[in-house]
Amino acid sequence: MRPSPEIVVAAADALSVLAERRPRVHAITNPAAATLTANALLALGALPSLTTAVDEVAAFAGSADALLVNLGSLDGDRRGAIRIAVVAATELGRPWVLDPVLIDRSPSRRDFAAKLTADAPAIVKANAAEAALLDVPAGVLPVVTGPVDRVGTGATAFAIANGHPLMARVTGMGCALGAVMAAVAAVAPAPVAAAAALLAVGIAGERAGEASSGPGGFVPAFLDALYRLDRSAILERARFA
Amino acid sequence: MRPSPEIVVAAADALSVLAERRPRVHAITNPAAATLTANALLALGALPSLTTAVDEVAAFAGSADALLVNLGSLDGDRRGAIRIAVVAATELGRPWVLDPVLIDRSPSRRDFAAKLTADAPAIVKANAAEAALLDVPAGVLPVVTGPVDRVGTGATAFAIANGHPLMARVTGMGCALGAVMAAVAAVAPAPVAAAAALLAVGIAGERAGEASSGPGGFVPAFLDALYRLDRSAILERARFA
Amino acid sequence: MRPSPEIVVAAADALSVLAERRPRVHAITNPAAATLTANALLALGALPSLTTAVDEVAAFAGSADALLVNLGSLDGDRRGAIRIAVVAATELGRPWVLDPVLIDRSPSRRDFAAKLTADAPAIVKANAAEAALLDVPAGVLPVVTGPVDRVGTGATAFAIANGHPLMARVTGMGCALGAVMAAVAAVAPAPVAAAAALLAVGIAGERAGEASSGPGGFVPAFLDALYRLDRSAILERARFA
Repeated sequence: MRPSPEIVVAAADALSVLAERRPRVHAITNPAAATLTANALLALGALPSLTTAVDEVAAFAGSADALLVNLGSLDGDRRGAIRIAVVAATELGRPWVLDPVLIDRSPSRRDFAAKLTADAPAIVKANAAEAALLDVPAGVLPVVTGPVDRVGTGATAFAIANGHPLMARVTGMGCALGAVMAAVAAVAPAPVAAAAALLAVGIAGERAGEASSGPGGFVPAFLDALYRLDRSAILERARFA
Repeated sequence: MRPSPEIVVAAADALSVLAERRPRVHAITNPAAATLTANALLALGALPSLTTAVDEVAAFAGSADALLVNLGSLDGDRRGAIRIAVVAATELGRPWVLDPVLIDRSPSRRDFAAKLTADAPAIVKANAAEAALLDVPAGVLPVVTGPVDRVGTGATAFAIANGHPLMARVTGMGCALGAVMAAVAAVAPAPVAAAAALLAVGIAGERAGEASSGPGGFVPAFLDALYRLDRSAILERARFA
Repeated sequence: MRPSPEIVVAAADALSVLAERRPRVHAITNPAAATLTANALLALGALPSLTTAVDEVAAFAGSADALLVNLGSLDGDRRGAIRIAVVAATELGRPWVLDPVLIDRSPSRRDFAAKLTADAPAIVKANAAEAALLDVPAGVLPVVTGPVDRVGTGATAFAIANGHPLMARVTGMGCALGAVMAAVAAVAPAPVAAAAALLAVGIAGERAGEASSGPGGFVPAFLDALYRLDRSAILERARFA
């Protein structure tokens, strides 16, 4: 389960490329996570857009380098906008990440997520309860988050153990992680993108946890740590299960 | 108007039970307040969900231990989602809290709030301008917020005077208070829930106000104070009008 | 391009009047910017409301002293709500500000923005890419933001160079600027409102940038600086291109 040193180096490289190329990421996400998601992307150098309007989303997703589909709320136009955005990204060969938030709480959201996994996301990122309810087809990289995050299956699978308990006391941390995965997927293959996002968010989370005395101070400290994250921090602090 | 020492002890007990049982709270609220609301709930140990989608909200409200209905925006699906959520909560005997935000600015919102008060919320929490426009039926606990917060009517009424002026310079503070009231109502009777939420938010607000030099630093300090609030802080700092 | 000392004095005066009169500002904006926008308005003393519901927005915009129309997302009811709000503001002679966010990414949003510029906003605030796509009619004040912000055209034009690079790493900063412009427009003519908002946000941004080590700590420091901004800071730190 230990990632090869090559994956960690590739992850650190990918974060540098991301900071330099500044890819556009269109993130369809829930309102509670919108600000943190956009700020996490900006901290790493990506350029976020977030509209969910059905008559705009094709233009935004089509001119973005990657797409995040977060199911954290499916009100209003969101289902239709998601379908349009996925078609636009797929037609242009842009990677997209599916985050099936809380499908264990809602059968209709679970059905929608099941259909979306068939539309070839690069990555499906879920916690254990959500992952247990989804069949991820071959060719899609599964990432199951938790105290230990597991990436992929079979011989190439690996696990990452960075992170801090305060991350579970802040809304939108997992949602921001999915968006960062999409951003790195714009410049690197899916397993590297998953590793880079888990390491960046996990290590920034550790630094923020060490620097703060609760979940309130954690958020600004986390964004600062993400902004200041450098190659040596990734290489030195990567932790494997 | 002074709350009995029993109510303050019961409020402190209820906050401990909340932190231990970690109830699920479904919060239908406005986008500007969504992040602070979810983070305040998480800081105290509750588990928030926030969708307003009509085809999901019954499943979410039905699997939650309490419901918040905040009228801070009624765009899109929100009216329909609120009706569905209230039915789901009521059928299962779950407590719900109504926060009729700014009904003094909008006749249509006021009419909607008037109908909702007839659907047996556990608590209606409003400021003086909002409360003046609503008839709260018998069996529903009225909470009127202000420099002094007044809970209930008649012989059992009491008033709490905790809080800090910076709370009025931060969006969503009152909305977060309503959500905390719903969270405590999942584990305690309405008057105890009202007291516990007013004391927790008011005392955390005081500590944050003392520790910060403006409304920006206030927010992280407030969430940290809420997260670190203990029984002795409630008992020692409770202030009565 | 240097603003007259009179404009800077008038801008400082307008911010004092704003803090004293506490105008109501109805801000139609995108979810990622909603919290920062409301908190920036509150920090300066304005009273924000943000609903986008079609059956409420006339009442809110009609009882507000100024209106912001930010096109950062056009999902759900937003187009309809914007039309209703603009009519309500115009009929009552209230100033309104148009912020045509990212119209360079979406043809349908660009068309909508073009129609709105014909409805006599007091100010159109855009970055260079957005401004290049819009014809601003006579009588509407154009503000083009960037490292140097340019206000107006012809003999009365001026430029302001306050600000900090971290502002580009925080979502919603430009959106909050537009809302502050609307707030000042409630108490001062458009050129003074533009100058006051650019100076207030730019100088608070400089102070926050100096006090923070990344975009996370920047946000609370920015709101604190906005809250504590005084006349002498405006007069002493105003920078011209």
